[in-house]
Amino acid sequence: MTVEVPVIGRALSPWRRREDAPHQPSAAPDAEGVLEIDAEYRAGLADLASFDRVWVIFLFDRSEGWKAKVKPPRGGPKRGVFATRAPHRPSRIGLTSVALTGVDIDAGLVNVKGIDLLDETPILDLKPYIRGVDAWPDASDGWLAPYLATAPALKKPRRPDG
Amino acid sequence: MTVEVPVIGRALSPWRRREDAPHQPSAAPDAEGVLEIDAEYRAGLADLASFDRVWVIFLFDRSEGWKAKVKPPRGGPKRGVFATRAPHRPSRIGLTSVALTGVDIDAGLVNVKGIDLLDETPILDLKPYIRGVDAWPDASDGWLAPYLATAPALKKPRRPDG
Repeated sequence: MTVEVPVIGRALSPWRRREDAPHQPSAAPDAEGVLEIDAEYRAGLADLASFDRVWVIFLFDRSEGWKAKVKPPRGGPKRGVFATRAPHRPSRIGLTSVALTGVDIDAGLVNVKGIDLLDETPILDLKPYIRGVDAWPDASDGWLAPYLATAPALKKPRRPDG
Repeated sequence: MTVEVPVIGRALSPWRRREDAPHQPSAAPDAEGVLEIDAEYRAGLADLASFDRVWVIFLFDRSEGWKAKVKPPRGGPKRGVFATRAPHRPSRIGLTSVALTGVDIDAGLVNVKGIDLLDETPILDLKPYIRGVDAWPDASDGWLAPYLATAPALKKPRRPDG
């Protein structure tokens, strides 16, 4: 069984190639991007600017097929794909939260910071980040814990024209 | 443009009717549920049990069409749908984090607590909650701020057989 989900827009981002993109937004907190929302969906952007973080639900459109177990970028054995944020998932759905820096409803432009999406990534949904339900600072790090001590080096965003 | 997304399983939950379900998991922190994952996807559940929270990406399958502006359950004027977590979204995709209490990989059963999904809700993806990228306890509450002072009354889950 499958469901059909409309693409509501796309990301404009400094990350052009998979090998350049950070594995998570925390690896490039200053990378600026724009979420360009299609005309028919723009009225739904009202009130979004009142939040300072937003969830982006997107499609890993350059992911080629899913794997039950994936090799984590930080090393160690393969892990179940649902215990990772890897692109190789059955749904190809990705989830990331970014800082909101501006919304132009008429133009359908949402300016964000800390973007880890590849340029031209299809966007499926935007939702406000609501700390009362989304922030769990005491959640365990699971199998990741021993790997977090050795954080990956920060990557510098390259502008699409740079 | 649309994309096709496979359903990987479904939620078994005490919430049978829309009018009974909490609007967010924080309104029913003790509601227990099971995420039943289809056989072909079960191997992907490996290592998930090491985390204590999990993101559930699901389909609001009982949502009837999307609206650019929606009336929030807490009151006040209509808000842009992307500034809410309402079901009436173009994608019909929902996002909720739940506490993980057990995983049976062979049976494809993920036991969770704090579930706000309706019984039989289709599941599209599971991801580990990773506090380093997901927890932003200082994020603003946006337009919701004045409404959060008056939290909704807690609802008690009813067992499907009760």
